Amino acid sequence: MTHTRQSATAFAPGGVGNIGPGLDILGLALDGPGDTVQVEWTDTPGIRIRDPGHPDLPRNPARHTAGLAAQAVLDRAGDERCRKRGIDLTVRKGLPLSGGQGGSAASAVASAVAVNTLLGSPLNRFDLLGAALDAEEGVSGRHADNIAPALLGGIVLVRSLDPLDLVELPIPEELRVVLARPHQQLRTAEARRVLPARVSRATALHQAAQVGAMVAALASGDYALLGRAIDDRIAEPVRHGLLPGFREAKRAALDAGALGSSISGSGPTAFALVCGSDSGERVAAAMSAAYTACGHRSDVRVARIDREGARIVNGAEEDVL
Amino acid sequence: MTHTRQSATAFAPGGVGNIGPGLDILGLALDGPGDTVQVEWTDTPGIRIRDPGHPDLPRNPARHTAGLAAQAVLDRAGDERCRKRGIDLTVRKGLPLSGGQGGSAASAVASAVAVNTLLGSPLNRFDLLGAALDAEEGVSGRHADNIAPALLGGIVLVRSLDPLDLVELPIPEELRVVLARPHQQLRTAEARRVLPARVSRATALHQAAQVGAMVAALASGDYALLGRAIDDRIAEPVRHGLLPGFREAKRAALDAGALGSSISGSGPTAFALVCGSDSGERVAAAMSAAYTACGHRSDVRVARIDREGARIVNGAEEDVL
Repeated sequence: MTHTRQSATAFAPGGVGNIGPGLDILGLALDGPGDTVQVEWTDTPGIRIRDPGHPDLPRNPARHTAGLAAQAVLDRAGDERCRKRGIDLTVRKGLPLSGGQGGSAASAVASAVAVNTLLGSPLNRFDLLGAALDAEEGVSGRHADNIAPALLGGIVLVRSLDPLDLVELPIPEELRVVLARPHQQLRTAEARRVLPARVSRATALHQAAQVGAMVAALASGDYALLGRAIDDRIAEPVRHGLLPGFREAKRAALDAGALGSSISGSGPTAFALVCGSDSGERVAAAMSAAYTACGHRSDVRVARIDREGARIVNGAEEDVL
Repeated sequence: MTHTRQSATAFAPGGVGNIGPGLDILGLALDGPGDTVQVEWTDTPGIRIRDPGHPDLPRNPARHTAGLAAQAVLDRAGDERCRKRGIDLTVRKGLPLSGGQGGSAASAVASAVAVNTLLGSPLNRFDLLGAALDAEEGVSGRHADNIAPALLGGIVLVRSLDPLDLVELPIPEELRVVLARPHQQLRTAEARRVLPARVSRATALHQAAQVGAMVAALASGDYALLGRAIDDRIAEPVRHGLLPGFREAKRAALDAGALGSSISGSGPTAFALVCGSDSGERVAAAMSAAYTACGHRSDVRVARIDREGARIVNGAEEDVL
């Protein structure tokens, strides 16, 4: 009989989805805060959420991405043990709720990785992605631009969801991302409602050209081109009205030397791409000041791309839970 | 007084515009046939077309891209000599008429380069692009996906037309392009009329993802990904009905090992991307056989990417004109 783990804890990073023109198809993972999920066997069948990570998050596992992802992994693994035993989840949210930093995806991915580890790793990364994607779909729509970088790290292009086909893109050495989160909440579902069902052919071709240019810029390390390509004409024009202070913060970021700036995920966090940490600090200060001038407190930080993605954490970190 | 050239001759390659999902924004230049334009000073003011290159092409310089491009270069250069003297153009068409191989762009670019040389090269490449673009617009709409590679060579992404912003993409070593031209003609204007004015957001995002994946594949030399990304859901679905035999030829190309296949420019030429010349020969034979089976004669060839673009030709080639 093989040794069976009693618990496992996984961390998944947050990041930026919908990078500029890459609505639903381009995302990246960032170092710093993320979500952590501890899972452990219990003697009661079923999945329970012991701590959802935030008072506003549901304890119902069918309504929390960590619970949904855990169930999706169990379903895919077909693990017999779960008929007699259950799994308890403890979620620690390092990412803001409805912040536009990929929090629901990070919880899903961390949960999927932790449960898979608990089961002895029956699923490969591809299956884990599918499980996390199903979980994200249950809460905020079927899109992988947060799920994929949260699991894999780096900057990921979602070429196709069905079949799932992901492209991990090169990361320029000096690329930094400034995140500025005004103290507002915006539900993903609300931000999706305002998206146009149809766009003009010209807009579609423009958007495609920008995504192509972004990928080319990442591959060649052409920071200026990367900035020029952050020109989203589908989501940003209809969403910025939902985000007081965003336009001012973006303007301030560009004036302070940002390569480009847009909405992170579906907001309210704004992001700016910069070359180098010093530039990042200047841009972060400028964005913060702009939000303040508009009457909004905000949290800002300068981050590097997380190249590792989700990982099992042990020892001290596990003890904290 | 500086020496003034009496004549100049330039060659510009043909190629593939609208590469797969890259409608209006992605084009490449191919070695082999192209258009050649000889220009020479005459004592009669104005631009005249001595030979339009084909009996079906207009002699009116305001209706031939070579004539329009010559005028656009003169306008941009503001050359005083043209008040007293004129320029005669002799066009040699190496590219098929209305074939979808960038013939009108090649004539425009060759003419622009030749006239610029005649004037002592007052314009830089950027201005030459603008001149050729104006000429192409007069005949088949304002798009640079043939103009840019005809001038610059290689594979070019048009990030923006206004302001003009072009991205020269990496060229995988083994990339070959099969062109199969059935003996049909399709006017660009007619092929453009069938394009939808609006597309669904899902289609737009899909198309953008494919363009991004194509660029990533070119940068990393991932031939399989390049093939998967040749998945155009805007132009090909509405144009293939205008192109008898295309679907069969595409199917045959894929079955014979092509990475991907779609319509070159606005057709009727079909293209297939392949890895290596041997594969190219097999795919070319399969496409030819498929057209034949549909009752269409066709010309097929296997080409490499032309990395040089438009160039001045001298000596023997100039004598031929």
